Amino acid sequence: MSLKKITKNGRALLLAYDHGMEHGTIDFDDRSIDPEKVLAIADCGFFTGVVLQKGVAEKYYDSKKHHVPLIVKLNGKTNLIADPDPYSPQLCSVEEAVELGAAAVGYTVYVGSCHEAKMMDEFAKIERETDKHSLPLIGWMYPRGKAVVGKEYSKEILSYAARLALEVGAEMVKIPYSGDRETFSWVVKAAGKVKIVVQGGPKIEEGNFYQMVRDVLSAGAIGLAVGRNVWQTKEPIKVARKIGKIIYKS
Amino acid sequence: MSLKKITKNGRALLLAYDHGMEHGTIDFDDRSIDPEKVLAIADCGFFTGVVLQKGVAEKYYDSKKHHVPLIVKLNGKTNLIADPDPYSPQLCSVEEAVELGAAAVGYTVYVGSCHEAKMMDEFAKIERETDKHSLPLIGWMYPRGKAVVGKEYSKEILSYAARLALEVGAEMVKIPYSGDRETFSWVVKAAGKVKIVVQGGPKIEEGNFYQMVRDVLSAGAIGLAVGRNVWQTKEPIKVARKIGKIIYKS
Amino acid sequence: MSLKKITKNGRALLLAYDHGMEHGTIDFDDRSIDPEKVLAIADCGFFTGVVLQKGVAEKYYDSKKHHVPLIVKLNGKTNLIADPDPYSPQLCSVEEAVELGAAAVGYTVYVGSCHEAKMMDEFAKIERETDKHSLPLIGWMYPRGKAVVGKEYSKEILSYAARLALEVGAEMVKIPYSGDRETFSWVVKAAGKVKIVVQGGPKIEEGNFYQMVRDVLSAGAIGLAVGRNVWQTKEPIKVARKIGKIIYKS
Amino acid sequence: MSLKKITKNGRALLLAYDHGMEHGTIDFDDRSIDPEKVLAIADCGFFTGVVLQKGVAEKYYDSKKHHVPLIVKLNGKTNLIADPDPYSPQLCSVEEAVELGAAAVGYTVYVGSCHEAKMMDEFAKIERETDKHSLPLIGWMYPRGKAVVGKEYSKEILSYAARLALEVGAEMVKIPYSGDRETFSWVVKAAGKVKIVVQGGPKIEEGNFYQMVRDVLSAGAIGLAVGRNVWQTKEPIKVARKIGKIIYKS
Amino acid sequence: MSLKKITKNGRALLLAYDHGMEHGTIDFDDRSIDPEKVLAIADCGFFTGVVLQKGVAEKYYDSKKHHVPLIVKLNGKTNLIADPDPYSPQLCSVEEAVELGAAAVGYTVYVGSCHEAKMMDEFAKIERETDKHSLPLIGWMYPRGKAVVGKEYSKEILSYAARLALEVGAEMVKIPYSGDRETFSWVVKAAGKVKIVVQGGPKIEEGNFYQMVRDVLSAGAIGLAVGRNVWQTKEPIKVARKIGKIIYKS
Repeated sequence: MSLKKITKNGRALLLAYDHGMEHGTIDFDDRSIDPEKVLAIADCGFFTGVVLQKGVAEKYYDSKKHHVPLIVKLNGKTNLIADPDPYSPQLCSVEEAVELGAAAVGYTVYVGSCHEAKMMDEFAKIERETDKHSLPLIGWMYPRGKAVVGKEYSKEILSYAARLALEVGAEMVKIPYSGDRETFSWVVKAAGKVKIVVQGGPKIEEGNFYQMVRDVLSAGAIGLAVGRNVWQTKEPIKVARKIGKIIYKS
Repeated sequence: MSLKKITKNGRALLLAYDHGMEHGTIDFDDRSIDPEKVLAIADCGFFTGVVLQKGVAEKYYDSKKHHVPLIVKLNGKTNLIADPDPYSPQLCSVEEAVELGAAAVGYTVYVGSCHEAKMMDEFAKIERETDKHSLPLIGWMYPRGKAVVGKEYSKEILSYAARLALEVGAEMVKIPYSGDRETFSWVVKAAGKVKIVVQGGPKIEEGNFYQMVRDVLSAGAIGLAVGRNVWQTKEPIKVARKIGKIIYKS
Repeated sequence: MSLKKITKNGRALLLAYDHGMEHGTIDFDDRSIDPEKVLAIADCGFFTGVVLQKGVAEKYYDSKKHHVPLIVKLNGKTNLIADPDPYSPQLCSVEEAVELGAAAVGYTVYVGSCHEAKMMDEFAKIERETDKHSLPLIGWMYPRGKAVVGKEYSKEILSYAARLALEVGAEMVKIPYSGDRETFSWVVKAAGKVKIVVQGGPKIEEGNFYQMVRDVLSAGAIGLAVGRNVWQTKEPIKVARKIGKIIYKS
Repeated sequence: MSLKKITKNGRALLLAYDHGMEHGTIDFDDRSIDPEKVLAIADCGFFTGVVLQKGVAEKYYDSKKHHVPLIVKLNGKTNLIADPDPYSPQLCSVEEAVELGAAAVGYTVYVGSCHEAKMMDEFAKIERETDKHSLPLIGWMYPRGKAVVGKEYSKEILSYAARLALEVGAEMVKIPYSGDRETFSWVVKAAGKVKIVVQGGPKIEEGNFYQMVRDVLSAGAIGLAVGRNVWQTKEPIKVARKIGKIIYKS
Repeated sequence: MSLKKITKNGRALLLAYDHGMEHGTIDFDDRSIDPEKVLAIADCGFFTGVVLQKGVAEKYYDSKKHHVPLIVKLNGKTNLIADPDPYSPQLCSVEEAVELGAAAVGYTVYVGSCHEAKMMDEFAKIERETDKHSLPLIGWMYPRGKAVVGKEYSKEILSYAARLALEVGAEMVKIPYSGDRETFSWVVKAAGKVKIVVQGGPKIEEGNFYQMVRDVLSAGAIGLAVGRNVWQTKEPIKVARKIGKIIYKS
């Protein structure tokens, strides 16, 4: 299955914007709470995809107007229930995503959660559907749960999560960064032919962020999915351009 | 999707009458226990919709006789089981609602309940059906559950609930009022293109109620869904006219 | 939907005979354990319906031979598991009931049980099916469960149960008697256009039983569903005639 | 529905051989572990049916070669998990049983188990399928579970189990023997038109076993389902002939 | 159903490579983490099948290029959640396996786990599908769970597990070795017409491994499924040749 639509020169830079579902409005200010403003950033030319829940996609994303490819997140949950072993239900079908004009879809598996079996089952069924539509399926493989607490960024667990994406049939995997290139290159090996994009995470100092971008690329990832480190900055497009430069030219 | 059928001048005033399901007969007197009498109030010209469970709609609502649009509540539960984390099962399908002549449908999600995932899943599936029928889906987004107890009217939780309605694909959201215009205008922003109607709640002093109506409108809501503050008063139609004046002309 | 087939002069007298499922053989003697003998009583001309589980209907009820209309009970359970919050699974589909020649069907909701949501969900789905077949659906609305223990015969809970039948779309409701006319007339109001038949309950002294029949009718119920107070008596048909006289002529 | 295929002179003698599923290999010796050898016994002319799980039927039962009718057991479980309230999942569909050449099918309900509702639900659904194929459904109605512990052979519980088979729509019921003719004749009455075969149980002294056969027949059962009391004996066919003599000629 | 495609001279030697799913990357080194390198080993001529999860099969197995038959493992789970009673969800449908070019499929049942019923149910449904496609179904029958802890290699439990494969309709069973020929020949008898391959297990000393291969064959198994004892060695193909010699010529 081809990742062409959501990559450039084999690299990917995705703008994540499902924080309203996952975190509420706490991440937002008057600008970033408005999907139109964030879509304008997404459409600045440096992103190979924007990640939205179906409701935001329906009301704000217009495939005639927007150039950035749409990636629909198929499951999601609030962070209100502090379950140490989270589960995230499917909220959008593959068919709906196709009708919304999606170029790819994503689904979160909380690797290590005691509800893992349920999510793996849903993931596997979704994969049958995306296969029919030749739609790339991105695995949000996040270590979470009592079984992996404290080990979420370890080589052992991250390489397991990456491998899981390969074994279950994902085309791309979004995963946290382990923090150093050496361990992360093992994670990349574990994923095999599955391409890795690194999760941006909470906002950090810009210089450190650019360094991380360089590191994950040199470890073998093909890019990042960023949110807060772009749309929480004062000049999001400038930041996007800088990240883009590193990603597409390195 | 158009909200035209259940709005007037872009504003909405809904008469809620599903208390027999949600509270039993404790809210009723000899008048209000009779659906015919309450439907007569609903039909007085000041309401843009009446909210009924399917059983009451089937036996009392007559689209040839009644002018007020019908909104069918798709789920519901009794208040007998004092579960701190409530769940409300779907009792009416979208197809049934269409056959009953519904102009819109509603579904309650208890935001923060540990059964949230189940309700989000049902909500999302209903949304696929309402889409096919071009029927507006109204999210009754109610903070409820151990995780949010004491925070049901906070800016943080109400804006989260409103945003959830947007992310999951509702057209309108019914939500409690936070109590002040400033915080509520953030809730309105969180909802984006999703229109907000405020829940009327238990009967309060008339003057205070009218003030609340003005406040929620100035904060950006498009109206209210009222029940007890209308049909528990001595002169329901007079009260409806007063609320209508504020809503449609402000 | 018409109740004509299971009423006479707008009144109903149903013979209940699903005790083998609900109670075992403890209610039976050598006569009443035999479905043929009980069907002969049911067919004596004073009953507007006989209530059977599908197995008994299949093997004993013959629509060519028997004149009394058949009412198939769609769910049922044993009383072996002493769960304070009972659940009763569906055992017969609406289609099967139609094939058995049913003139109506019944389903028990244990109002107040923590499994209430599951039964309400099943009830609501059954209602869609009965609608297609124009088959009246009778709600066995029984207060049961830790949440209502000690309040099973209260005005508050019985009126709630009756109202629930209306809200969810039943055509008739079978409900226990509150014990006095005044409170029960509130229960009747709560049910609105849904007709009420009172549950006969355990065998009591004949004179008291006839008085109860008169009371429930004067409170607005349209009749009763009796079992033990008929087929546990020495002369069941004589008793049936007496009840019939009160019901059809008062 | 006709029981002709699995009865002779209105009597039934079934050879049960699903012990490998229910008990493991502990019941077997070098002979009885081999399905071919046990099928040879079953085919000796004295049995009106042999009870097999689908896997054994598929690989060993040949309708062209074997004369004894096949009864496929539709559910089953191991005895490894010592759950006081057992559940036995369906492992074979009615359609599969038909394709295997089954003359009847069986399903176990653990009467009194807290999973009773689930098994009753499955039983009832299976009954719809067997009805379509005019295939007799035999209820393995076994009292089991915390609610009935110590009462598994009581008149009260066994008559309840037998009645349940009638109420839910079985054609035949397999049930343990109460131990005396008087109580068991009440069990037979409870079953009404549903025919009873008694469970053979663990191996006992031959003379005692023949006496039990006579007793259950005189109490009104139409036969037995035996396993260990035949294929654990030294001369199974001789034993089968003796039982057959009692059953078909008494 | 024929096992021809995955046997040679009636014997089987399968290369297992689903460790990325079941164990993470801990079993791998720089060579064995790469599916291409392991597939090259599998294709060396000594294996009658290679066992893969669907994701690895999709991306690496090419039926035009590879000669070794593909066996798709239909369920799988991580080892992160240390549930003493494991459950492994189905991740690949039979239809998908067929499209991937599978010559057989496998499914794990944790025999003795309290989730056994769920896995047996899934296994039985899969069997209906494989039957339609004439695809051999291999049961990974692994004793696991609180009920069997400490008895995983006992004659009693292993013969039960093998028998279960027969009763439920598997064509082949993969099972741990009991450790001695005498007990294992009872296990072989229990399986009847179902062929047994022994699980290779963790890497052990080469000489001991070859001895085990000889023992299991002489006990009646038709071969082994090996993984670590091949691809964790320095010269995997040399080892494969040695095992092959024992298996195909003994």
